Amino acid sequence: MNARKVSSQPPIPDSSRREPSLTIGVLGAGQLGRMMALAGYPLGLRFVFLDPAASAPAGSLAEHVVADYLDEQALERLSACDVVTYEFESVPVEAARRLAQKTQVFPPPDALAVAQDRLLEKECFRALGVPTAPFAPVSTREELASHVQELGLPAVLKTRRFGYDGKGQAVLRSEADLDAAFAELGAQPLLLEGFVPFERELSLLCVRGRDGKVAFYPLVENRHREGILRVTYAPADGIRDSLQATAERYAGQVLERLAYVGVLTIEFFLRDGELYANEMAPRVHNSGHFTIEGAETSQFENHLRAILGLPLGSTEVLEPCAMLNLVGDLPPREAVLAVPSAHLHFYDKAPRVGRKVGHITVRAATRAALDANVTRLLRLPGAG
Amino acid sequence: MNARKVSSQPPIPDSSRREPSLTIGVLGAGQLGRMMALAGYPLGLRFVFLDPAASAPAGSLAEHVVADYLDEQALERLSACDVVTYEFESVPVEAARRLAQKTQVFPPPDALAVAQDRLLEKECFRALGVPTAPFAPVSTREELASHVQELGLPAVLKTRRFGYDGKGQAVLRSEADLDAAFAELGAQPLLLEGFVPFERELSLLCVRGRDGKVAFYPLVENRHREGILRVTYAPADGIRDSLQATAERYAGQVLERLAYVGVLTIEFFLRDGELYANEMAPRVHNSGHFTIEGAETSQFENHLRAILGLPLGSTEVLEPCAMLNLVGDLPPREAVLAVPSAHLHFYDKAPRVGRKVGHITVRAATRAALDANVTRLLRLPGAG
Repeated sequence: MNARKVSSQPPIPDSSRREPSLTIGVLGAGQLGRMMALAGYPLGLRFVFLDPAASAPAGSLAEHVVADYLDEQALERLSACDVVTYEFESVPVEAARRLAQKTQVFPPPDALAVAQDRLLEKECFRALGVPTAPFAPVSTREELASHVQELGLPAVLKTRRFGYDGKGQAVLRSEADLDAAFAELGAQPLLLEGFVPFERELSLLCVRGRDGKVAFYPLVENRHREGILRVTYAPADGIRDSLQATAERYAGQVLERLAYVGVLTIEFFLRDGELYANEMAPRVHNSGHFTIEGAETSQFENHLRAILGLPLGSTEVLEPCAMLNLVGDLPPREAVLAVPSAHLHFYDKAPRVGRKVGHITVRAATRAALDANVTRLLRLPGAG
Repeated sequence: MNARKVSSQPPIPDSSRREPSLTIGVLGAGQLGRMMALAGYPLGLRFVFLDPAASAPAGSLAEHVVADYLDEQALERLSACDVVTYEFESVPVEAARRLAQKTQVFPPPDALAVAQDRLLEKECFRALGVPTAPFAPVSTREELASHVQELGLPAVLKTRRFGYDGKGQAVLRSEADLDAAFAELGAQPLLLEGFVPFERELSLLCVRGRDGKVAFYPLVENRHREGILRVTYAPADGIRDSLQATAERYAGQVLERLAYVGVLTIEFFLRDGELYANEMAPRVHNSGHFTIEGAETSQFENHLRAILGLPLGSTEVLEPCAMLNLVGDLPPREAVLAVPSAHLHFYDKAPRVGRKVGHITVRAATRAALDANVTRLLRLPGAG
């Protein structure tokens, strides 16, 4: 075709001449995987996602194997990838272990196993001298009663596994709450946690390379409603250098202990100037979405750099940012984009009550200007 | 599956409940289309590309119809899109006109027709009082001789259509060059241009919305080698506000005249402080790639905002940037990413002599720091 002959992108007659492109296998194909692929394409990477949900968000922009996480053929396909990672921490550890026999899997499956279990997670923190709320494992109604005696009330009863967005938890305010809570959750192994009346929730995004080099983003502040993250401020306001240093020291020990590779997120409670580790996520994290526009290198690119053994990118945050989750509803695009420096992220998911369907990142030169834009955005349906 | 049941990305049982997502049809599936899709996915857009090249770069991350641009079925598929645009200006205008009968096509096919023809393009500039090199159409050897008399030598003989990266051009230094040049190019309609001994080549990236609102990025400086853009500096050094204002006034007239919608790029020669319009590209442009990391809103997102009738985004450039094309060769990823604030873009194309296979954008707080990074990057294979 004439027009084509003079194209500045001429056809490639023999596609075998194409340079080998690294392929990343990803367990889970949600919005985190979608944003990981968007960060990886410019690096010349390709992606294969495994997720049983046919309409998972990453599926519309990469190869998507729709199957159970333990499906033989599916794991066969992923084991042909150069590196395998996860965007969702509740995948069966067995799937990760099986893949690790055939290809490189980062973060290490052992780290995934620890992060999946609130008890192992808390024990890891405790073993490293990282402060946490007091906790005790609970498997019977009797254990619950005795541990409530030790830890006191109020306390929080949590399933050890598969909790997210406040689900799988019950707050115990009085003895009267114990029966109902145990009846609701007791079928699974549980963890009882002493209640920490914290002032703020902070999270620290960390990344560790295959060479052991680490990088940390500044502590951010997370505001929740109904157990769901609504707004993240980055950097968190009024954080002393010494507190950032303490958080990095705690996190550095965890990264080492787990021989971690990739992005790890640790949530902390801040109380009386002290940090208490609440939980860790062995993956890129909702509280790090601001890094797409707000940091020199996004958490998604740094995760990919880490698992590929590439140099980590700068974690510098250039301006104050806020990230607002869009939960259960999508505002009109034009309303979001009319706000100066607002950056829109729709996940291509059907809106549903309590479901994260997108987010907005906004930056400003000053915190005051930022707050003005945030206030304006918070009026939008689904925002914050 | 248990693990899946508690996923924070639950499966969508009935995909008909998914919100309707706007679909953009794109003629051409090269790297410009690829980067357009990467900018569009966060806006919740979907993409369908039409390109006869089976291995075109956008094909690995979106639906790709592999067919001739005038293929009936292919045009049928694209006409089902909400909006159609181009990432390649040498597509047959007829394809755009046919699509415009069934869906919205931006930029307007008439603008595409003007930008495809160096004579119509230059006449458009002239009609608006935008300075250009002297020019004259040439269809016979006799016309060439007579116009060379008027315009003098040196001069440049160019095909009216389908020129790119210095191809379809011949520099005439003496009468002795005329025969060979006409023999080489004379089969097609030609344009003779007087030679402008310019000091610098600048380009202006413009965007015009469906509501007629316009926005301009700062003038950038382009450095070529062998007719191929190698490095863009953004903003161009030492540009007076008055020169930026003049460029914007010229461009604003062109945008109006063409009833333009989307991103338009105008290349200018700078000589003795005066701007001479050289050519326009009715699309996102190589000299605008720096906007991905270097501007508040990328040229790709602003093009999509414009053709969708959404508010235009800020064109502010936050720090001095340089964009280095990777031509004919790909440097090792680790070598690029080891340079502070270097951002890598591979196009997933097979390296070939003279072929653009990627680019690198680097930013710095000061021009001096930028130059240091550029110097380091220029040592890499394929760079600059």
